[in-house]
Amino acid sequence: MLKIAVLGTGTVGDTVGSKLIELGHSVMMGSRTHNNEKALAFVAKNNEKASAGTFAEAAEYGEIIFNCTSGMGSLEALKMAGEKNLNCKIIVDIANPLDFSKGMPPSLFVSNTNSLGEEIQKAFPMAMVVKTLNTMWCGIMVNPSLINGGDHNVFMSGNDGDAKNQIKEILKSFGWAEKNIVDFGNIETARSTEMYLPLWLSIFGKEKNGAFNIKIIK
Amino acid sequence: MLKIAVLGTGTVGDTVGSKLIELGHSVMMGSRTHNNEKALAFVAKNNEKASAGTFAEAAEYGEIIFNCTSGMGSLEALKMAGEKNLNCKIIVDIANPLDFSKGMPPSLFVSNTNSLGEEIQKAFPMAMVVKTLNTMWCGIMVNPSLINGGDHNVFMSGNDGDAKNQIKEILKSFGWAEKNIVDFGNIETARSTEMYLPLWLSIFGKEKNGAFNIKIIK
Repeated sequence: MLKIAVLGTGTVGDTVGSKLIELGHSVMMGSRTHNNEKALAFVAKNNEKASAGTFAEAAEYGEIIFNCTSGMGSLEALKMAGEKNLNCKIIVDIANPLDFSKGMPPSLFVSNTNSLGEEIQKAFPMAMVVKTLNTMWCGIMVNPSLINGGDHNVFMSGNDGDAKNQIKEILKSFGWAEKNIVDFGNIETARSTEMYLPLWLSIFGKEKNGAFNIKIIK
Repeated sequence: MLKIAVLGTGTVGDTVGSKLIELGHSVMMGSRTHNNEKALAFVAKNNEKASAGTFAEAAEYGEIIFNCTSGMGSLEALKMAGEKNLNCKIIVDIANPLDFSKGMPPSLFVSNTNSLGEEIQKAFPMAMVVKTLNTMWCGIMVNPSLINGGDHNVFMSGNDGDAKNQIKEILKSFGWAEKNIVDFGNIETARSTEMYLPLWLSIFGKEKNGAFNIKIIK
């Protein structure tokens, strides 16, 4: 069992953090302040393996860091977490570079020839960024069997093979079948999965419900 | 049965044009010149319903225009086709804004807050642009049953409901089940399907084979 930092107190952080605790891991939820209301609610509703702290305290605590902040705030949150607390650790980057400031639908503030995953890797070269789970609603991330018996795909990008293997084990513990975990290669391939977000949003606009995903048919 | 212009002599134009002829339509393949070798080969291998001409001749002939040119050349090809030959007609835009000039993987020369589909609609405001079929290899476009009994998705964007309904009938004649044809709304939603291309390319890089597509699982 691992000590894990979950950065971000939104629905994604709460869902992923609670699932990790259910699986037996210890989770510190990190936010800007010591006494973030949502982080305290997360601690209250989970067992004693849940705790809360600042971004820096959580990152220092965690052997693995889950970035569940909003894409716009991710680099700042990770900087507040502190490079020394991230070095030689895996950052599981679930965030998407969605810019809601110009109205709906959101655009991407980085895309095409760059990605948020790459920006995080560049900002923290001694960390091992693994981009994954960013192509679906958080309810599906931690419970793929919610739809189609779990038979649909999750993608993965990152420069470090060992780090990806370790995260693959966590995905399997979430219920993902190995055959449905698609490793695209290095962190540059995060462009592919981040640029899928507009299609995700279009499908969501039709479905009016986040409980969907895509499956590669061949 | 319709008179259809297929602009572009590449594999997409050849595959789509041949299928339309097989279904009983008459197809003129348009290119820069009268005597394009690939267009003449297309005529030779198909029945008497196949013909070839310049972009302008094909567009004048066609009641519906299929844009099967490469994305980089689409606007120029359509300009050569001539606005008067496109006005009040449906342009089925299958092209993607792929820019191969900066190496592999290609980036998109328009994306995020704009799309090739929108650019074409803006350039020819009296035409009815329907973006569709651009999210898959052409072998699947015209023969969806090649994989999974045809049970996977094709997307559609366009401002004109009647035009989309007419193209939906053509898609159904290709073998697409109505339930698998997803209409996202107006032409701005072409951003979603064009931005899926990097993910398509990543999947293709894993599969080494174009005979795949995605299905929405819910």
